[in-house]
Amino acid sequence: MAEPDSTDRLALIRERLREFARARDWGQFHSPKNLVMALTGEVGELTEHFQWLTEQESRELCGTELDGIREEIADVQIYLLMLSEKLGIDLLQAVEDKIARNEQRYPAERVRGSRRKYSES
Amino acid sequence: MAEPDSTDRLALIRERLREFARARDWGQFHSPKNLVMALTGEVGELTEHFQWLTEQESRELCGTELDGIREEIADVQIYLLMLSEKLGIDLLQAVEDKIARNEQRYPAERVRGSRRKYSES
Amino acid sequence: MAEPDSTDRLALIRERLREFARARDWGQFHSPKNLVMALTGEVGELTEHFQWLTEQESRELCGTELDGIREEIADVQIYLLMLSEKLGIDLLQAVEDKIARNEQRYPAERVRGSRRKYSES
Amino acid sequence: MAEPDSTDRLALIRERLREFARARDWGQFHSPKNLVMALTGEVGELTEHFQWLTEQESRELCGTELDGIREEIADVQIYLLMLSEKLGIDLLQAVEDKIARNEQRYPAERVRGSRRKYSES
Repeated sequence: MAEPDSTDRLALIRERLREFARARDWGQFHSPKNLVMALTGEVGELTEHFQWLTEQESRELCGTELDGIREEIADVQIYLLMLSEKLGIDLLQAVEDKIARNEQRYPAERVRGSRRKYSES
Repeated sequence: MAEPDSTDRLALIRERLREFARARDWGQFHSPKNLVMALTGEVGELTEHFQWLTEQESRELCGTELDGIREEIADVQIYLLMLSEKLGIDLLQAVEDKIARNEQRYPAERVRGSRRKYSES
Repeated sequence: MAEPDSTDRLALIRERLREFARARDWGQFHSPKNLVMALTGEVGELTEHFQWLTEQESRELCGTELDGIREEIADVQIYLLMLSEKLGIDLLQAVEDKIARNEQRYPAERVRGSRRKYSES
Repeated sequence: MAEPDSTDRLALIRERLREFARARDWGQFHSPKNLVMALTGEVGELTEHFQWLTEQESRELCGTELDGIREEIADVQIYLLMLSEKLGIDLLQAVEDKIARNEQRYPAERVRGSRRKYSES
């Protein structure tokens, strides 16, 4: 029989993050405002991996360069999970709602292949 | 009956995102480099919600202000999922690996309550 | 008669920014921390203009698209001036010092044409 | 007699930046798109200095912490100058135009002391 509360992977990750902050008494720093800044910092580090690459080079990443990027992406995800939790937001539900909204907002037949339609969102 | 777990839910979300881009022929714009920029743009929008708030105000968000933030967070998550997929990165595995690394890197007894130790990561 | 030089012009701009905030009683929001977030928000808006462009397209911008970018760049500059002032930093002097440092750090003959040397700064 | 072209401080800085890139053959990497990403990366580094500070702490920075921030601010300014130049934008003129626009857009008597009016720009 399934026990979603104890076995669910994202729930376990969230519990580890809570415990990590609790053990270090770092919760005091984790206001939503500060977590948004921490997220920004990690996105900045991620950006630095890509800034001088051509688009094509960015599609062919591998080895230690990709490993470094994998860590930055993990950091972004970690802060996004912590931020959502602090704000009481169900992250996956928010994503599902937003995709549904985008599906309505950008009818395929009207925006197909157009960067401009896309940008003007 | 058990709820789908987050791994299944994430797989469904990824499939919807793939189909969304395919139907609109937008895959051509989605190089990893461009997706990193799109992620930056969404983090910028998220930041705008928080820039003039005190930390305490950021802990008490509700109503339409929180709804707007929820959408920005969803956008960040969506681009992070798309970026991971393009790079062939298993996002949850990357997060689990990074948490394990952080647990080793910041021994609780050494860094407890210290913002400085934290920042110098 | 000589044009005012950039130092004088910058001094005038700074005075206008001070007066602008004073007249609106907005100084209370302008802690360095908040100004850094405001800067981030503007850089996010700037990024949105470029995220789906090819590098070549980004070199050929004109008309209303360029006008919009010009405004975002102005916003970034405004917050950077405000931030420097709050922190007591002489912005042009900081730039001159950093260029001198970069000239030493990246000897032309060693890094010529290499993106990798550049990234590893 | 004034010789703005040869003595103006910002003009000299721009010339040093051009020469710096030319000597290293780095102009090939400096598409506007890439410079926007480089700007983002530097703003991310700047943000990392501030993310765990209270607003009050951010007002009292000094010593080596402030020195580090001064360098990041210089980096942001350098990329903003390079970006403006590549796009043919007169940076100080753009700032002056934007301030004039803001003065009209936010009449002091209507928005005084209100963070909300400010955010809804």
